[in-house]
Amino acid sequence: MKKYGYIYTDLAAELRDIVIEEEVSTFLEGIESEEYEVHGIKVHWVKVTNSAGEELIGKPIGNYITIESPDLREGDIDAHENAIKVMVEILGKIHNLDKDSTALIIGLGNQHVSPDALGPKVVSKLLITRHIKETLPDALCDNTRSVAALSPGVMGITGIETLETVKGLVERVKPDLLIAVDALASRSVGRINATIQIADTGISPGAGLGNKRKSLNEESLGVKVISIGVPTVVDAATLASDTIERIIDEMVAASDIGTPFYTMLQALSAEEKYAMIKDILQPYSENMFVTPKNVDAVIDRLSNVIANSLNISLHPGLGREDINRYIY
Amino acid sequence: MKKYGYIYTDLAAELRDIVIEEEVSTFLEGIESEEYEVHGIKVHWVKVTNSAGEELIGKPIGNYITIESPDLREGDIDAHENAIKVMVEILGKIHNLDKDSTALIIGLGNQHVSPDALGPKVVSKLLITRHIKETLPDALCDNTRSVAALSPGVMGITGIETLETVKGLVERVKPDLLIAVDALASRSVGRINATIQIADTGISPGAGLGNKRKSLNEESLGVKVISIGVPTVVDAATLASDTIERIIDEMVAASDIGTPFYTMLQALSAEEKYAMIKDILQPYSENMFVTPKNVDAVIDRLSNVIANSLNISLHPGLGREDINRYIY
Amino acid sequence: MKKYGYIYTDLAAELRDIVIEEEVSTFLEGIESEEYEVHGIKVHWVKVTNSAGEELIGKPIGNYITIESPDLREGDIDAHENAIKVMVEILGKIHNLDKDSTALIIGLGNQHVSPDALGPKVVSKLLITRHIKETLPDALCDNTRSVAALSPGVMGITGIETLETVKGLVERVKPDLLIAVDALASRSVGRINATIQIADTGISPGAGLGNKRKSLNEESLGVKVISIGVPTVVDAATLASDTIERIIDEMVAASDIGTPFYTMLQALSAEEKYAMIKDILQPYSENMFVTPKNVDAVIDRLSNVIANSLNISLHPGLGREDINRYIY
Amino acid sequence: MKKYGYIYTDLAAELRDIVIEEEVSTFLEGIESEEYEVHGIKVHWVKVTNSAGEELIGKPIGNYITIESPDLREGDIDAHENAIKVMVEILGKIHNLDKDSTALIIGLGNQHVSPDALGPKVVSKLLITRHIKETLPDALCDNTRSVAALSPGVMGITGIETLETVKGLVERVKPDLLIAVDALASRSVGRINATIQIADTGISPGAGLGNKRKSLNEESLGVKVISIGVPTVVDAATLASDTIERIIDEMVAASDIGTPFYTMLQALSAEEKYAMIKDILQPYSENMFVTPKNVDAVIDRLSNVIANSLNISLHPGLGREDINRYIY
Repeated sequence: MKKYGYIYTDLAAELRDIVIEEEVSTFLEGIESEEYEVHGIKVHWVKVTNSAGEELIGKPIGNYITIESPDLREGDIDAHENAIKVMVEILGKIHNLDKDSTALIIGLGNQHVSPDALGPKVVSKLLITRHIKETLPDALCDNTRSVAALSPGVMGITGIETLETVKGLVERVKPDLLIAVDALASRSVGRINATIQIADTGISPGAGLGNKRKSLNEESLGVKVISIGVPTVVDAATLASDTIERIIDEMVAASDIGTPFYTMLQALSAEEKYAMIKDILQPYSENMFVTPKNVDAVIDRLSNVIANSLNISLHPGLGREDINRYIY
Repeated sequence: MKKYGYIYTDLAAELRDIVIEEEVSTFLEGIESEEYEVHGIKVHWVKVTNSAGEELIGKPIGNYITIESPDLREGDIDAHENAIKVMVEILGKIHNLDKDSTALIIGLGNQHVSPDALGPKVVSKLLITRHIKETLPDALCDNTRSVAALSPGVMGITGIETLETVKGLVERVKPDLLIAVDALASRSVGRINATIQIADTGISPGAGLGNKRKSLNEESLGVKVISIGVPTVVDAATLASDTIERIIDEMVAASDIGTPFYTMLQALSAEEKYAMIKDILQPYSENMFVTPKNVDAVIDRLSNVIANSLNISLHPGLGREDINRYIY
Repeated sequence: MKKYGYIYTDLAAELRDIVIEEEVSTFLEGIESEEYEVHGIKVHWVKVTNSAGEELIGKPIGNYITIESPDLREGDIDAHENAIKVMVEILGKIHNLDKDSTALIIGLGNQHVSPDALGPKVVSKLLITRHIKETLPDALCDNTRSVAALSPGVMGITGIETLETVKGLVERVKPDLLIAVDALASRSVGRINATIQIADTGISPGAGLGNKRKSLNEESLGVKVISIGVPTVVDAATLASDTIERIIDEMVAASDIGTPFYTMLQALSAEEKYAMIKDILQPYSENMFVTPKNVDAVIDRLSNVIANSLNISLHPGLGREDINRYIY
Repeated sequence: MKKYGYIYTDLAAELRDIVIEEEVSTFLEGIESEEYEVHGIKVHWVKVTNSAGEELIGKPIGNYITIESPDLREGDIDAHENAIKVMVEILGKIHNLDKDSTALIIGLGNQHVSPDALGPKVVSKLLITRHIKETLPDALCDNTRSVAALSPGVMGITGIETLETVKGLVERVKPDLLIAVDALASRSVGRINATIQIADTGISPGAGLGNKRKSLNEESLGVKVISIGVPTVVDAATLASDTIERIIDEMVAASDIGTPFYTMLQALSAEEKYAMIKDILQPYSENMFVTPKNVDAVIDRLSNVIANSLNISLHPGLGREDINRYIY
């Protein structure tokens, strides 16, 4: 994140919207964007095509796809089945696996912290086959790929950079594709647990929750890295900052006047405003996040959706029922 | 809560501060207030002495004691031991038990929702003796009182008003004192998990988390009710609302000007401001709360503090070591 | 349990088999028994018809139905769906509800002890409607009955007899039917988590796990009580005792000789053998039980089966999909 | 395990006792053994000194120390403090760390299976410093060593041999000592959760629970490996087999007769007996284990003991209080 590096979000779609607003232009050099709806799910596909786009949006060249539906955070089994279909289609378009490929899934995040446990929960629901492929290959039907997985924990608990652990594993497992799953931060309360972002450019573990670590990507690992993330929290200062922004907008629109006070507020950059609010909320806002009360149940269901999508996409030889049985 | 009924807090000390500000006076008719520090813990004792005080602060006649220390939310074993000492002293002043009395502890809240699980967690750490008193009284040392406990769940999960369940139990157990433990809401991020409120006037289950149920108190149950609560969340709209308030104050103080825009904002009552922000955050702010990420660990430790205080206060015949052994 | 009171099982079908063996007769006065298979599930319906049967088998007059399939303990979604169908049929035959009836479900057992958590887990997955019926009856479709539920905990943790808590609740909720769900003990490792017993004569909480409490039944509560139980453990001494029995049988069959040693073993009654083994395993066998390693996952799935059966049986106006959505 | 390879135990002290009995001799070539008591804890130090000992007992040359107290499985805080003192002494005698050394702790086992979760639980309670040593070394007091940790999961869930994961990590972290913590199997119900074994010869992950994996030891990893294990289960067939053995012994002693049946039983080797019983218990005994009902609470407390011992032993610059604060 360069020009707008202070913005506390992991979602390319959010970044693009903010940049459009700041740049006062819908045309962004080096950024392609397409939106469509399928099975009742909104898909937003942002492609960063060159270094101008990279510079602008602070994300490397590649694909950033968000799928979005407020039903995702509810116990709506149909919405979840639809999300699985959409994700399987998208994963099919961006992964490069043939039938003898090996995939390694990394579940990032801290399983003991509810909104950060998405990655480890997904890993616990995957259909793992690598050890069977190596010892009893005939026990598996055709088109079942070799899949391995690990939840490496977070640095505060292991003392080890996630990149180090994953590098050691990649050297041994020699996967053709690495898929990293993580909880993200968003700017928008409306996006919490209602959006899944898939990207093919790697990931920085813990970026969303404020402890950015060394990136997992093709450059650092020598293997293509697909990331799957769900925004599960908004940091408290961001929430306050954005609300103020919107209030001022609404009030000014309503009163139709420009005042010195308003002008003063407007003159502050978003970055200055965020810093000011963070300061006011101190010393207690540190590590304060906004989540729904039933975060455990929601993350359980979202991890089902993601694990199912991966199981179907990685093992095309298995029917939906076999996967069902496994996940159940 | 009457005059300031829109204020979303369960803490009498917070209410008093707000009312002082709104009334522009530190003298409040029918409200006595004393602050002191002991063992490094701040104690704030608010006494509502008559119906004028009741009217003003929206809480019935009685004692409301908050103990406060930011160390409470950290893993600071000394601060927790000190909090236990302070609580045992306070409980001794407001409970009415002699050695043959029976106490019934009710753990309010939903154990499956992290910030709401305080009550059930406390219950799971109590030294329960009623069944032993009835069958093997000699197995217990002197000055061990008869203690029973129940976590009745929340209405959404049981279909039963908590008051109904507790009433049925009170009729059978016939306790001399009922103690209800619950998670509360606060206005202040700084108070989250850093404050314990003890009151001797009963409690409305779920008040803090927005689903106020019928009160448990001497009138409804025929037995004195002491409540012990910890603010574990701030609702997201309250956080945004309060932050805006403080920002305007700081900016106006800094700029030393009154502007039409500022005047307009000022003209809004706190109630109108809260409604406006709630509206802006809609539809997703419903059920969105601010908590620390490690809420599970913090609530575990706070439930140790409260359970220990109750065990020592209710069983004065047991040494600290015996209690330690039990809780461990 | 009278004549064969030392036998450590809650399953009427097991008791009947043992009694047949001890009595050396398949005709038991006052006991009717029918076995059939439906949807791949074995159903065994034992009816105690008079006091002679009561005396013999140590269970009151009434129906005792076991459904059995080793697939129940596996993640076999089809077997579970079939079990649900069978249970809905059986429940329909023995419950007495019309459309305005109220049912109260009691989840017995200790939720903090894995093999004993079945009851509380079922309660957490029920479609609870009583509070909606009372406040927003039109929000519910026709043929949705009024359902309430509680997990009252175990006496060691509450200090209160389960019967006391339930009595107080029954007086207030005034249900037309009480359904109690509990984990049971079995004699047979093969039955663990592979059998569900439904009875219409009430239940003694904790009987299976060795701490028999006062019975919940029509006599004690004034309302019909259906019990649903799953054997989740075998006590370690029972396992050893039964294995020895079988070994002796096999070896004698193989060797075709009667020896003084064998004769001596044979001369011991089952009761004496159990006491002897318990003695040998002392002092550490107390509270030692045999369970599968993945007991948490198995109990999760079985609680889905039971909760689904109850949801469908109690709310016939809801389709399978609506229930699905709820349980998910 | 060679000569007595069928014996299902991880404890060298148990193996030695069995071998002594089978060999009818207390002198075992290549095995030294010392027993003493300190702080009320029984210590049994077995040293395998040469290849004859290796052959006999099926364990490599090195030290095998068991500490034993039935109080370990109870909530006896004094017994646990004593166990910590004893373990710190033993660890000091067998580890080779100077003040700039790095230790890597590996928590073996499956955290989702209660009796197998010991290793991951210990890891979650360690004082991890490696990342601080590298970035903020002055934040740590003297004599705080560099400590890192990982719970690599089990092969059924990751598809990766534990040895592979650990090897990759060792290459990067370059520790001077690796300490592996695991749940073990025992032959004796009396030893469950009452014994801790420390060895300096490495470990085979999952050996105790029947899925033996490639060993972690100096040969495979190039670094000294200390293992710390607690027997948390007895497999059901072993329990039955051992009970029968003891029953026959008691009955024969009592009756003072040798009979053909007894002679026949005696003629079976322990291996044949185990196989026969396993056969009789089939098909359901697979994965059936004996544990106490409160296994979660017991493993919690034992993981506190082990984590505390490691924290004190690895960070001698920290006082007991600092560690206490951390673990709490």
